[in-house]
Amino acid sequence: MNSVKESRESQRKELYTIGLDYGTLSARAILVDIGTGEVMAEAVKEYAHGVLDTELPDGTPVPFDWAFQHPGDYLDALYTIVPQVVRESGIAPEKIIGISADFTGCTLISLDKNGTPLCFLPEYEKELFAWVALWKHHGAVEYAPIVHRAVEEQMPEMLARHGGKISCECVMPRALQMLREAPKIFEAADLIMEAGDWLLMQLTGKLVRSQSMAGFKAFWKEGRGYPDNTFYTALDEKLRDYDRTKQRGEIKAIGDCSGRLTDEMAAKLGLRPGIAVGVALYDAHAAVAGCGVSELGTVALSVGTSGGFLVCSDRLVPVEGTTGATMSGYLPGWYGYATGQVSLGDSFAWFVKNMVPERYHSEAREKGMSVHTLLTEKAANYAPGETGLLALDWWGGNRSILVNAELSGLMLGMTLQTKPEEMYRAMLESVAFGSRSIMESYERAGLHVEKIHAVGGIAKKNSLLMQIYADILNRPIYICKSTQAAALGAAMFAASAAGEETGGYATVQEAVKRMANLEDYHYEPIPEHVAVYQKLYEEFERLHDYFGRGENEVMKRLRRGKVQ
Amino acid sequence: MNSVKESRESQRKELYTIGLDYGTLSARAILVDIGTGEVMAEAVKEYAHGVLDTELPDGTPVPFDWAFQHPGDYLDALYTIVPQVVRESGIAPEKIIGISADFTGCTLISLDKNGTPLCFLPEYEKELFAWVALWKHHGAVEYAPIVHRAVEEQMPEMLARHGGKISCECVMPRALQMLREAPKIFEAADLIMEAGDWLLMQLTGKLVRSQSMAGFKAFWKEGRGYPDNTFYTALDEKLRDYDRTKQRGEIKAIGDCSGRLTDEMAAKLGLRPGIAVGVALYDAHAAVAGCGVSELGTVALSVGTSGGFLVCSDRLVPVEGTTGATMSGYLPGWYGYATGQVSLGDSFAWFVKNMVPERYHSEAREKGMSVHTLLTEKAANYAPGETGLLALDWWGGNRSILVNAELSGLMLGMTLQTKPEEMYRAMLESVAFGSRSIMESYERAGLHVEKIHAVGGIAKKNSLLMQIYADILNRPIYICKSTQAAALGAAMFAASAAGEETGGYATVQEAVKRMANLEDYHYEPIPEHVAVYQKLYEEFERLHDYFGRGENEVMKRLRRGKVQ
Repeated sequence: MNSVKESRESQRKELYTIGLDYGTLSARAILVDIGTGEVMAEAVKEYAHGVLDTELPDGTPVPFDWAFQHPGDYLDALYTIVPQVVRESGIAPEKIIGISADFTGCTLISLDKNGTPLCFLPEYEKELFAWVALWKHHGAVEYAPIVHRAVEEQMPEMLARHGGKISCECVMPRALQMLREAPKIFEAADLIMEAGDWLLMQLTGKLVRSQSMAGFKAFWKEGRGYPDNTFYTALDEKLRDYDRTKQRGEIKAIGDCSGRLTDEMAAKLGLRPGIAVGVALYDAHAAVAGCGVSELGTVALSVGTSGGFLVCSDRLVPVEGTTGATMSGYLPGWYGYATGQVSLGDSFAWFVKNMVPERYHSEAREKGMSVHTLLTEKAANYAPGETGLLALDWWGGNRSILVNAELSGLMLGMTLQTKPEEMYRAMLESVAFGSRSIMESYERAGLHVEKIHAVGGIAKKNSLLMQIYADILNRPIYICKSTQAAALGAAMFAASAAGEETGGYATVQEAVKRMANLEDYHYEPIPEHVAVYQKLYEEFERLHDYFGRGENEVMKRLRRGKVQ
Repeated sequence: MNSVKESRESQRKELYTIGLDYGTLSARAILVDIGTGEVMAEAVKEYAHGVLDTELPDGTPVPFDWAFQHPGDYLDALYTIVPQVVRESGIAPEKIIGISADFTGCTLISLDKNGTPLCFLPEYEKELFAWVALWKHHGAVEYAPIVHRAVEEQMPEMLARHGGKISCECVMPRALQMLREAPKIFEAADLIMEAGDWLLMQLTGKLVRSQSMAGFKAFWKEGRGYPDNTFYTALDEKLRDYDRTKQRGEIKAIGDCSGRLTDEMAAKLGLRPGIAVGVALYDAHAAVAGCGVSELGTVALSVGTSGGFLVCSDRLVPVEGTTGATMSGYLPGWYGYATGQVSLGDSFAWFVKNMVPERYHSEAREKGMSVHTLLTEKAANYAPGETGLLALDWWGGNRSILVNAELSGLMLGMTLQTKPEEMYRAMLESVAFGSRSIMESYERAGLHVEKIHAVGGIAKKNSLLMQIYADILNRPIYICKSTQAAALGAAMFAASAAGEETGGYATVQEAVKRMANLEDYHYEPIPEHVAVYQKLYEEFERLHDYFGRGENEVMKRLRRGKVQ
């Protein structure tokens, strides 16, 4: 280990970039040595207004399942955390050669002709759509089927990029909602932008849009660009020229330089004017680079509240259940395929909140550990297959492969002797089986998975779960050392934006090779476990298909009963 | 209500019988007015040795899943509780006209040529099979298939009485085990008897066997009697003449008089010599009379740790999944069909022990109620179908309809919003759906169910569950007032044994009409609930058939995985 550390130290470049990670509730900055990925300083700022999902700042009510944000919070964060990391690191500004950001998405901001967010104008401050529509604003749910039909008729090949179904979180259903439900605001909006693009525009003064974001959520396609007016006018005549008006702007690939830091912004942030500013991408996608994916065949597995299974390939092929395959989606030059599980850590948290008896809480308190840790310790005493339980990981529906939000959780095999830790283990196994079904979908499409880079707090903490992943996926699992993989990814994109000429890198992949760090240990599949889990996966798959592919739609029917 | 009470009082006969109920851990006596069923006194005695399932009294180890008892405990109980009820009631012995008993079963005792239990002889006290083999002794599990094959070949019509599968709890697998594994004891046993028959033999000095017990567990059949030697010798040549040697004795129907109380026993018990002694039957079966079943079309539903669905009919027809249809099984002159659920209250107890979070326990403590009551109160706030959940009631396997112990529990429909009380409600609904599937099986066979008499502690306590039963079965549910329905049934059989000539009854049915008491309230199906539950039952049935009838045997495979 010493030798590794020394060689790492000898690789220090003493040149730095700043990675910004704009999440749902806060923004984070890290200042990183681009030779080693070492984090020299880190700062976080919570958004003062958080998520506006019950009312606007002035008290205007927000309907259920709608969600907005205050763009002033993004700027406040910027002006706080960037100067803070520069100051706290003690690094001289001339050593900092680039900055970039990832952002939640699709998160849309509307600007007037002067580039001012509409919500900053007193006449619009009571208008919901004048505010930033957050990724989890689901107000456009009625408009998604309209857009779906137009896509199906005019560019059916794009459906595969969206897992066969256009989501209400995409740009066009949301634009349509705005046009129909807030026509005055739609009229006043000179630009409607991804908030990530808008943030970097503040740094450069240049209107540039991320190809990755446009490809995943706005039907932009390499070689063609946006759809033409036949598509927009099929949705609504008033959307004619949408791509050349409200959605205008130069498209650039991630890893490129979107522009140079303006003098004014450099002064505000304590940076050198003219340094490279990268191209934005979604937060979860930045973690692909951040966790060290620099070769085809390596998959980023994010293990958090929800789960991501993010695949890069040089080929565009239909993969069942992908929610998007976009050129330069995660890494430049490669198609990025997005798949994942709606609920992962979520479902473990549900279990601990609802299904764990008093004595387990007491025992955890006595031992000074979390209930999750206690259950994991107890669950680790069982061999694969020993619990006799099997669960489907659909507590939040199924986002990938089946793309069906009406599916729900299932567990079977319980007896009067079944213990909570056995059910907890079945929950852990279920998410790995869910990942396996996603992996099989890629393999069937000819995209081979050789190894996994896992990222997220649970990946670092729960070694039982990670061994289960290795055994069920039958692939080695490497663990991303950084707990801020998205911010680190943004710093890598900044290093690529800076380019070789200023001491940065020619490609993002090169930056990844130098700046990513994995834990010294990894999880190797254990052959005896693999054999048992292979059989159990066949059982999982059979239930998955029976309940998920139309043979028995009981879950859908039960859910409809619920809303009767 | 007053008028009911008065008319009841005017029906008092001031003639009494004693009902004895021999359970797994204790014996109970009640002394009852045979005009009204009023209990004048009650006494209970726990067995000093309980269940010998880890070691014999001298420390000899007992294998897993084997279970024995000490017959001295039965006699100690007899000599304690009968004098106690006579004394405490203050009733003059000449007013007590009969006594009878129910007993667990099949529970077998072996006697030497002098009628002494073998375990009372010093030379056998270390021999497991010299002790009483309790109903839940499962040591004969390897011998059941041998017996099954012989039944299938020689008297396939008997298989229907056993739900298509001979259980290791029947007499012959156990006799075969004894012969093969303890030949010395088998040789020494002059009689092998149901402990219930043996107990009443102590009172009368006469060897009489219960037709009901012999019919349910020893292949006795009305019109034919026991099988002939072709059957016994197919099992083992050493079983030749088994029915005429170790299994000898006059067969009598329940409700008959098995003999008269001996002078010696009358003196010991404080009763009048020569009073009528009834014929024994199994404890669960005595509750059919005890809960007031006196007409065809009325079904006894026992709602306890496990569940019973006990049907009387004047016709013998094949009913899928019945574990026995025996002439005079529950009531004289009628076939008794036995069906039930292995786990019922058990599975609710499992839920409360394993699946209920700390805050529910605290809330229950604050409100001074049990967790079951709290969950039931919360569950009552949901309408049928509102939870979106569905469960199969197979935590203990499926005893009726599918007759498959390898089945296991299933629940589906869970989301991240699902609460414990919703799952508890799904557990309650699942047992009623399980009863519905049993009822449908009878209806398909042409045995119509008109109303239900529910018996057991849960039936009296959990009104939500009973309303759910009424709604799911779409039948009115009446509740047995007595919490000692089996003992009350035994007292009814004693009143019938006494006969009209001594002030008793000509038939058991007449005794039931006079002595049974139902609660003043009952549960009527609510049409809107019936409609929703009809749909949900169709979903239940589809899952039941999919997992239970061979289409997907995942539960069996998982269980085998467990014992690998």
